Amino acid sequence: MRMYDIIRKKRDGNALSREEIEFFVQGYTAGDIPDYQASALMMAIYFQGMDERETLDLTLAMAHSGKMLDLSAIHGIKVDKHSTGGVGDKTSLALTPMVAACGIPVAKMSGRGLGHTGGTIDKLESFPGFTTGLSLERFVNNVNEVGIAIMGQTADLAPADKKLYALRDVTATVDDRSLIASSIMSKKLAAGADAIVLDVKCGSGAFMKKEEDAIALAKEMVQIGRNAGRKTIAVVSDMDQPLGLQVGNALEVEEAITTLSGQGPKDFQELCLTLGSCMLVAGGKARDLEDARRQLNRVISDGSAKRKLAQFVEAQGGDPAAVYDVGLLPKASIRRPVPSPCDGYVSRIDCEEVGMASLILGGGRQTKDSAIDLSVGLTLCAKVGSFVHAGEPLAYLHANDESKAREATERFLASYHFSKEAVTPGRLIRYMDFPSGIY
Amino acid sequence: MRMYDIIRKKRDGNALSREEIEFFVQGYTAGDIPDYQASALMMAIYFQGMDERETLDLTLAMAHSGKMLDLSAIHGIKVDKHSTGGVGDKTSLALTPMVAACGIPVAKMSGRGLGHTGGTIDKLESFPGFTTGLSLERFVNNVNEVGIAIMGQTADLAPADKKLYALRDVTATVDDRSLIASSIMSKKLAAGADAIVLDVKCGSGAFMKKEEDAIALAKEMVQIGRNAGRKTIAVVSDMDQPLGLQVGNALEVEEAITTLSGQGPKDFQELCLTLGSCMLVAGGKARDLEDARRQLNRVISDGSAKRKLAQFVEAQGGDPAAVYDVGLLPKASIRRPVPSPCDGYVSRIDCEEVGMASLILGGGRQTKDSAIDLSVGLTLCAKVGSFVHAGEPLAYLHANDESKAREATERFLASYHFSKEAVTPGRLIRYMDFPSGIY
Repeated sequence: MRMYDIIRKKRDGNALSREEIEFFVQGYTAGDIPDYQASALMMAIYFQGMDERETLDLTLAMAHSGKMLDLSAIHGIKVDKHSTGGVGDKTSLALTPMVAACGIPVAKMSGRGLGHTGGTIDKLESFPGFTTGLSLERFVNNVNEVGIAIMGQTADLAPADKKLYALRDVTATVDDRSLIASSIMSKKLAAGADAIVLDVKCGSGAFMKKEEDAIALAKEMVQIGRNAGRKTIAVVSDMDQPLGLQVGNALEVEEAITTLSGQGPKDFQELCLTLGSCMLVAGGKARDLEDARRQLNRVISDGSAKRKLAQFVEAQGGDPAAVYDVGLLPKASIRRPVPSPCDGYVSRIDCEEVGMASLILGGGRQTKDSAIDLSVGLTLCAKVGSFVHAGEPLAYLHANDESKAREATERFLASYHFSKEAVTPGRLIRYMDFPSGIY
Repeated sequence: MRMYDIIRKKRDGNALSREEIEFFVQGYTAGDIPDYQASALMMAIYFQGMDERETLDLTLAMAHSGKMLDLSAIHGIKVDKHSTGGVGDKTSLALTPMVAACGIPVAKMSGRGLGHTGGTIDKLESFPGFTTGLSLERFVNNVNEVGIAIMGQTADLAPADKKLYALRDVTATVDDRSLIASSIMSKKLAAGADAIVLDVKCGSGAFMKKEEDAIALAKEMVQIGRNAGRKTIAVVSDMDQPLGLQVGNALEVEEAITTLSGQGPKDFQELCLTLGSCMLVAGGKARDLEDARRQLNRVISDGSAKRKLAQFVEAQGGDPAAVYDVGLLPKASIRRPVPSPCDGYVSRIDCEEVGMASLILGGGRQTKDSAIDLSVGLTLCAKVGSFVHAGEPLAYLHANDESKAREATERFLASYHFSKEAVTPGRLIRYMDFPSGIY
């Protein structure tokens, strides 16, 4: 078999066989196939696409390119959750204690973020002492004893995807749906969960700007997951404006805690209940979505979800005091309102620009080696559909540097658009791939 | 400027600016832009194409990536000729002495072949002592004194093309018309001639199988040449069967000599007259094509073209005795007929397969480092349209190895197809881009 023939075959619009795809993935991971042939193939795939069988084969080949995590020592049905990411997306922080409190074992691999804010791990470091440096043994034990454990993504998890993604990133071949789907799913399959719940974001703050693209991606990932023998459910949710009201690291932890206390913003709470219901049903802990939602509301109202968060933080070396007193979370030195420039209804928010404002404040990483300021960010006071008077705060800015604060304010203000007419925000849940009868 | 943005721009179907193309070519030649980005761009160009202006800019950038040969010390209008290559294509060997005898200075850079037979330089080594290792000074002097000089292609001639072609060759991005056109023309422009005559082959033995593709390539190269300020003429000629009757190295030299004596096969003689006429008109030595043809016929009939070949061979260290006695050329030890398996008209010849038979005999290079056997090859007795009786020779095989002879015979026989009905061969000259009024 020759890589040249594989590139040519795809270039000419033919489907690659399983053997050809495995030859490529194994050869590329081993360094036998050079980057320049891999990038030519990626570009050919960008133009010619892959069919369902090819996408599955690529996903499986990448998943098997490293270690397939064996979570069989963990009792019960392991349910993983994945979000394609967006601004103010602190879902894991609230959702995992909720489902764990309902008896779903949460064994999560997570990454540090490169973007507007840090990743889940960065955010959790708002609890002093918290660490994800767990041995696999302790990871498994924690899940069995506490119900939740999170560890950093190991290098040998789907190394083919890691190498290929880095190449696609510099050769303008990232935004192909099948390649995105197989990249995400290869890691999820290798991470060993029995069931996977996917939250695909769409809108101005998401990778997928258009709803139809997000739905197509969701369907493609669900298809891969099911073809690979994992229970897979996908939800497409709105990212045309930030999720919830807090954007930042410690600020998002605060909002997750508030939500676990039943006091969270409506949209964020609703997303947690939706995704959580899917996880409970997939994990066999609830008869149906309604039953699941009842259970989730109960673990919030009786405080057990919040206690689960505290247990989990403590089990990973963190001080959980802030779970009960959010005043203990890292705080920025400058806190000031960003006043509205006019009267009107908020008609549109350039969600990505709000993220950029957070990044400018120091809340995210511009490069892999940047340090993150956990305390900075934005607290929104008005979202799409809100009426504001000129001079009323659109948001509060949390900053530690005066010049960054000014730059972020400017960027933030430019992201808000107003209208004289009343505006109805888009629906939060745009699509759900949850076939009755399968689960 | 970032290479990523250039790839993305082309991927999305936009035309690249001159600055972007120069940034890429210079960066890639210097090693600042990695192969994997270059191959992604080549694949994007394969799918999205380049417009006329982009193709010109790429050609010029590659031509200027190394040394632009300065031939101003050579008197007169320098006319270069280029063939896209085929089986039995010994045109340069006969054509250059013809036009030189008419007063056109021929200053040629030539390569060694990788394929069915050697290149022009390999073939010329049939004259003992012949060398192309000339200094630029001697090269120029020889052209001024003898009328012809040929030197090997130097490494610093269009190095960007050399590097890019090697990359395209292993990433399935060779067969894009604009890339082929700019690759050929970049070398021709850098080689310094004032006028360029292109012989684009089409048919089963050529890179371009279809006439319309060959014509499109011819037009594209003519456009580039003219846009770059060089007189450029293109001819599209038949390669559905081997050119002339001899395929090999010394065998082709013999046929060129025969043709210079006015005794060559009709198709080969006609091609030499056609291309030679274009060269004479482009070089300002003839009023029109008819006048040119008269002059070319004269230098054949008065023997001056043949004498020019002898002078040229001698000036580059070779023994020209074989020009007057072809019996002195290298000879193979085995010479035997390949009998026709049936009665019938030759309806079709898989031209590339005839080339493969020559390669098997040892007449060509399979890899860059293979040695060439100058003496082997095939002498065809029947071409498309010929009637043959079973047992009559289709060709004579020249070999030095019995097992290779058997393998080549089999391959050769499989390339011939027969018909009970009379067959008319395709026209030799399919197209000519020779605008009246311009020259």
